Amino acid sequence: MHAYLAGASRQCYSWVKLHRKGKADMKHFREELWFQTRSRRELINITPHVRDCLTESGIREGLLLCNAMHITASVFINDDEPGLHQDFEVWLEGLAPEKPHSRYRHNGYEDNADAHLKRTIMGREVVVAITGGELDLGPWEQIFYGEFDGMRRKRVLVKIIGG
Amino acid sequence: MHAYLAGASRQCYSWVKLHRKGKADMKHFREELWFQTRSRRELINITPHVRDCLTESGIREGLLLCNAMHITASVFINDDEPGLHQDFEVWLEGLAPEKPHSRYRHNGYEDNADAHLKRTIMGREVVVAITGGELDLGPWEQIFYGEFDGMRRKRVLVKIIGG
Amino acid sequence: MHAYLAGASRQCYSWVKLHRKGKADMKHFREELWFQTRSRRELINITPHVRDCLTESGIREGLLLCNAMHITASVFINDDEPGLHQDFEVWLEGLAPEKPHSRYRHNGYEDNADAHLKRTIMGREVVVAITGGELDLGPWEQIFYGEFDGMRRKRVLVKIIGG
Repeated sequence: MHAYLAGASRQCYSWVKLHRKGKADMKHFREELWFQTRSRRELINITPHVRDCLTESGIREGLLLCNAMHITASVFINDDEPGLHQDFEVWLEGLAPEKPHSRYRHNGYEDNADAHLKRTIMGREVVVAITGGELDLGPWEQIFYGEFDGMRRKRVLVKIIGG
Repeated sequence: MHAYLAGASRQCYSWVKLHRKGKADMKHFREELWFQTRSRRELINITPHVRDCLTESGIREGLLLCNAMHITASVFINDDEPGLHQDFEVWLEGLAPEKPHSRYRHNGYEDNADAHLKRTIMGREVVVAITGGELDLGPWEQIFYGEFDGMRRKRVLVKIIGG
Repeated sequence: MHAYLAGASRQCYSWVKLHRKGKADMKHFREELWFQTRSRRELINITPHVRDCLTESGIREGLLLCNAMHITASVFINDDEPGLHQDFEVWLEGLAPEKPHSRYRHNGYEDNADAHLKRTIMGREVVVAITGGELDLGPWEQIFYGEFDGMRRKRVLVKIIGG
């Protein structure tokens, strides 16, 4: 199968060799990952832990949902590169500054309104394809827990369905 | 199962008691929720309606997709706290101001370009795990419909697959 | 079934005629779409290609995941309107400017930090309901590949599970 998008500047290739198709009974799996960071904001690569969940599930074809269970934290996919993580910190502080706390109406007895906004930019969840018993990720895709209001115990949910 | 992340400042706990695993036949369910808001922008907690869909589906283990079917509206998960919702309004107006309408090229016979951008920040959809017949949400997670170009009938889709 | 949200200004209707429910064996399908754009940034409507994948899969009820496999690209849903796409370009350049490249720590031998940030705003993935063998999209929903660091071969994954 070869498909060409309209317009001379655009090409879309699709090869049959990459194509997989099949049938299976539906299985399901659930696990929680718990975190307590030492600083207010931290990015943690959780790909190995998510992979452990998949192995334990025995699921070979399906979808994996990984989401923060707290509304001031994220799960997202990006590069595991420290310079980029510093760029994220500066950029998010620019888009949704932590201080002064009084700039947000949410901050009465809370001081974490900025964390709600930062997590909105970074996203609550990722859905990852499971193929041949592996996380079907691109070469640089790594799954991160993004903490924006840390120093207390918080959870990430991993749910897998498939066969 | 105990897992410790590399680095002294990072811990990840995972308990077997939280772990669930099983098999089931695949079921599917689809429903639409319709909205007509009185103002251009509004945030509506739709968690009870999504929960009703789940009950009606009879699905106990699976994934639930809830998405806006319109491109100037969002479905997202955050806190049901009025101060925070005012913060969202101010913040989104800062990132993607509604006026002057002429600032956007999309606004020829439309005036809603800002709504397309605001919805991009807030997201189109959420995927929620279904466990034991319940929405598997963290303690403060609530599902919201985010309207950014309201005062007309618009739809949200709920699709559930699982067993 | 009629449901009314609390508050005089809010209404939520839900009709049984829209409701679908059933059972099926679980099938799965995987495909990659490859792109090479001529410019650094480009938005490409990939809805027809995603629809082709669905047809090939034979899946009638389920969930379709479509995600960028690269961390400087997006898959998102919005309107296929050229004015809006120009608005996205201007808006994203405002939120995460490409230049000067030296403003980002990621940009040592890379120059694409802005692309990581832009893709974060636009999102990595979409999940689309499959109903009656069709992409269950709203009237204006179109699926886009968003390239923010192009001029080389990059991939999008389509994974479908269902019955």
